[in-house]
Amino acid sequence: MPPQSPHAAAGNAVLLLSCPDRRGLVSRLSLFIFERGGNIIDLDEHVDPVEGRFFIRILWSLEEFSIPEEELEEEFRPLAEELGAAWALRFTGRKSRVAVFVSRYDHCLQELLWRHGIGEFQIEIPLIVSNHPDLQPLADHCGIPFHVIPVSSENRMAVEKQTTALLEAHDVDWVVLARYMQVLSPAFVERWRGRVINIHHSFLPAFVGGNPYRQAYERGVKIIGATSHFITEELDQGPIIEQDTVRVTHRDSLADLIRRGRDLERLVLARAVRLHSEHRILLNGTKTVVFD
Amino acid sequence: MPPQSPHAAAGNAVLLLSCPDRRGLVSRLSLFIFERGGNIIDLDEHVDPVEGRFFIRILWSLEEFSIPEEELEEEFRPLAEELGAAWALRFTGRKSRVAVFVSRYDHCLQELLWRHGIGEFQIEIPLIVSNHPDLQPLADHCGIPFHVIPVSSENRMAVEKQTTALLEAHDVDWVVLARYMQVLSPAFVERWRGRVINIHHSFLPAFVGGNPYRQAYERGVKIIGATSHFITEELDQGPIIEQDTVRVTHRDSLADLIRRGRDLERLVLARAVRLHSEHRILLNGTKTVVFD
Amino acid sequence: MPPQSPHAAAGNAVLLLSCPDRRGLVSRLSLFIFERGGNIIDLDEHVDPVEGRFFIRILWSLEEFSIPEEELEEEFRPLAEELGAAWALRFTGRKSRVAVFVSRYDHCLQELLWRHGIGEFQIEIPLIVSNHPDLQPLADHCGIPFHVIPVSSENRMAVEKQTTALLEAHDVDWVVLARYMQVLSPAFVERWRGRVINIHHSFLPAFVGGNPYRQAYERGVKIIGATSHFITEELDQGPIIEQDTVRVTHRDSLADLIRRGRDLERLVLARAVRLHSEHRILLNGTKTVVFD
Amino acid sequence: MPPQSPHAAAGNAVLLLSCPDRRGLVSRLSLFIFERGGNIIDLDEHVDPVEGRFFIRILWSLEEFSIPEEELEEEFRPLAEELGAAWALRFTGRKSRVAVFVSRYDHCLQELLWRHGIGEFQIEIPLIVSNHPDLQPLADHCGIPFHVIPVSSENRMAVEKQTTALLEAHDVDWVVLARYMQVLSPAFVERWRGRVINIHHSFLPAFVGGNPYRQAYERGVKIIGATSHFITEELDQGPIIEQDTVRVTHRDSLADLIRRGRDLERLVLARAVRLHSEHRILLNGTKTVVFD
Repeated sequence: MPPQSPHAAAGNAVLLLSCPDRRGLVSRLSLFIFERGGNIIDLDEHVDPVEGRFFIRILWSLEEFSIPEEELEEEFRPLAEELGAAWALRFTGRKSRVAVFVSRYDHCLQELLWRHGIGEFQIEIPLIVSNHPDLQPLADHCGIPFHVIPVSSENRMAVEKQTTALLEAHDVDWVVLARYMQVLSPAFVERWRGRVINIHHSFLPAFVGGNPYRQAYERGVKIIGATSHFITEELDQGPIIEQDTVRVTHRDSLADLIRRGRDLERLVLARAVRLHSEHRILLNGTKTVVFD
Repeated sequence: MPPQSPHAAAGNAVLLLSCPDRRGLVSRLSLFIFERGGNIIDLDEHVDPVEGRFFIRILWSLEEFSIPEEELEEEFRPLAEELGAAWALRFTGRKSRVAVFVSRYDHCLQELLWRHGIGEFQIEIPLIVSNHPDLQPLADHCGIPFHVIPVSSENRMAVEKQTTALLEAHDVDWVVLARYMQVLSPAFVERWRGRVINIHHSFLPAFVGGNPYRQAYERGVKIIGATSHFITEELDQGPIIEQDTVRVTHRDSLADLIRRGRDLERLVLARAVRLHSEHRILLNGTKTVVFD
Repeated sequence: MPPQSPHAAAGNAVLLLSCPDRRGLVSRLSLFIFERGGNIIDLDEHVDPVEGRFFIRILWSLEEFSIPEEELEEEFRPLAEELGAAWALRFTGRKSRVAVFVSRYDHCLQELLWRHGIGEFQIEIPLIVSNHPDLQPLADHCGIPFHVIPVSSENRMAVEKQTTALLEAHDVDWVVLARYMQVLSPAFVERWRGRVINIHHSFLPAFVGGNPYRQAYERGVKIIGATSHFITEELDQGPIIEQDTVRVTHRDSLADLIRRGRDLERLVLARAVRLHSEHRILLNGTKTVVFD
Repeated sequence: MPPQSPHAAAGNAVLLLSCPDRRGLVSRLSLFIFERGGNIIDLDEHVDPVEGRFFIRILWSLEEFSIPEEELEEEFRPLAEELGAAWALRFTGRKSRVAVFVSRYDHCLQELLWRHGIGEFQIEIPLIVSNHPDLQPLADHCGIPFHVIPVSSENRMAVEKQTTALLEAHDVDWVVLARYMQVLSPAFVERWRGRVINIHHSFLPAFVGGNPYRQAYERGVKIIGATSHFITEELDQGPIIEQDTVRVTHRDSLADLIRRGRDLERLVLARAVRLHSEHRILLNGTKTVVFD
């Protein structure tokens, strides 16, 4: 029998924390857990020497832990405030609720739903939102509610209001743009900062904006890529979570680049979703720290 | 005993040709060779369906070939003109004469000289040119003349004149910029079009210009790259010959990116030099066709 | 609009041929096509210098070709016999008929059906055969007949007889084993030589036989792989078509290896199926020549 | 200015420790360091859930640390014994003393010496040992003593005695076999267990033993590899430190595999040497834990 993954088990807590670097941080944080009966299963830390900032992810077993889940934030707050930390506490027994936005391309959605179906992600998908009806059958096949909200230049604000209401009604934690071909408003981006993951079909920062495969084809690159990143106000400029590349040659037509790129897009996006669902990503300004 | 590589043997000819696509090109070109007693060892062709252009590389044995090397161009010219072709004939028995330009970094030069020393490249290196004296000992160790020509904003034109004279005096076929940190003038670039190979320490077109590793570090990419390309008037815009990438993480400092990138740079440049020395590269506008 | 792939178009022919190497083969074969009005779109050839054997794939347009498809074999036979060639003629307008064999794992079948659905493969899938009923819903969703034929040590011969009858009734050209967990008999293998593609979940020849991920986990490798190959009498010893690898670390449990390996398996198998569906694979003894 | 690597600085300590897993290990170990004034710069831990074993690497600054380097082992011993730990303490200010063994191939030695020369490794190389005189000039160029000790089937034991005396006389910490083509005796292996790093020119466990490139060529693999591992009694069976792979095709002759493999060998071996020189490798039975 394969060894059980820690994330498959209920009853673990994850602390994600960053703060100005100082002496004794690992010691103080691990002691906080140890003194309350927690057993650390996984600890990963990083110091950004340029910014002088400390990042840590600790996963510990709640078995024999003396603080109930619902009181843990309160218990931890004084230490976090003393450290001037940005932080979050997650519980592996509570799955993130994730909305997926799509347009017409099915490959990324297909990939996410397949992995979701075989239990690769510790998430729930309460709804799929699309500006086109095309992928409804795929959602139906998986029994996930599919909301078609057409977008035009006139109704963009109304659409986002409607979308936000939907996300709130479904208690959504974060959003995946699985080749959703609409630009989101600054207000929406601001409200969901650090909680919207996109897939861009190029090796960023090369080929920002539209038609990156055509741009790549015309430039004659020998490698193409895909990039998963958090959405920010500036198009394709958000913190990068994951990237991958594949070799191409002069024999590859634009259609071949699109075909090869599809495989990159869905794998790179799936990795980013898994990383975020396991609470492995911290923001470091315009960059990410990914504890994989 | 390993089978002998065709390129190790003297006595093969290589035809590199491109022309507007039309019916029967492969047949006519292979027949030209066959009728004169040549035995085709390797043939690779490509049609660019967007440009409607045909590209071919044919390697054949000159054993029993009825046309002497020195008369082959004359013999082939009528057919080439009929096809409206750009073309070149090379002979594997005649090594290209290649000049290497360097500044202070030794890793690319070291790599080229080591490979040259063990016979990986079918080239001669009659001279190394540098704007700094630092790498003289490395050149001396390999017994290759090393010319120090300091460059300043005032003497750039004089330097290029001197350099050009050197290249001509040494009967140089093409030039490798092995981390040569000077921009070449449009006149020089024009004169040596398609004959100057550069290594840029990023995954072009990302991070053109100076300090690409710093740019990559600040952008927070998860993969870095290196690109070998022909020099053109526009900085870092020339036809790409070869690229490669390597994964990095948040743990990698700028110094780590530079260290990892060094390995990419030297391997990518070495591959480009090998490809060109074996006459495997054709230009297709701003792109390349690489018959590897 | 992307340039149309040659394979998307009807009306091309493909010649796959191998024979003892001799002078003028490329010329004679291309002339055969040219003289009958064919326009060569793609030609790739290779000489195995150890075996002294010549391999070629020629793709040409049948537009203006003077020989009808159904007479082409007859027309070509004399030349082929003179050359002592093994050869096959294919027409891109006629899709291969491919049967897929599965057991319980869905990922490879899912991948093939998804790609098939979006038109990546030039094949028809008239039936899926399985020794378990588990994947029936997936087949149903795609509207492909699904035949459950349970296998035990007692009924193996009867099963193969039944299977062979099914394949013949459906006029199947070749078979894909998409994680089909049964060993085929020597008689079946012999009958379908060079026409059954398997995916093995290791980097062959490492970890032949059962439980390759467990073997890899216990050996402590830092990279795992997957291999697609033609089936032969000896388990996991057939000619390799395609392989790929991915890095793993000490953090990866056996379950993680299985998860990462799944992605390799489905991509590697899909590539092999695409290559074979485009008639790009020739056998060279226990090895393959893949004209990609 | 690039941020300074922690390893470039003097005055850090590294603890490498493994022991049976139990509650509170991270807390107790980090507290040990914190209470004595140490500031943890880097901490990486791993639990093998199958073996129930805990592994940790802690790097901390000795600035303001209250225990002198020479007393630290004594200070730490009681805790280590209580935990039943296998452990080692290293100081980044003290470079490992590494002997390199070679035969006739120069590429791995060249790579190590070049990287050593530009300061990539935190090691000293007091001597190079070879059974052939061929690489003496390379050693001379770098000013490293080169000891030629020819080996035959008759004198193997005497050679190892002489070699051991040399290693002891030079106070060598560990040994790198940089394509050293001799099998070491069980007694030597036992004495230097976990301290001899080899490079094998295949993707282990594929192609153990002699002529792995020929084996790979004959098997027709589409990817070749290289493996760096610790030497044990059984040939090519030791714990794997690092591996890498590269794609090959039917076009690659045996000579091409050797050429491509050379690049893998030197990069994989160099990575293993860097990892070990930075005290990042722990043994886990027949496997390794590599904290990179």
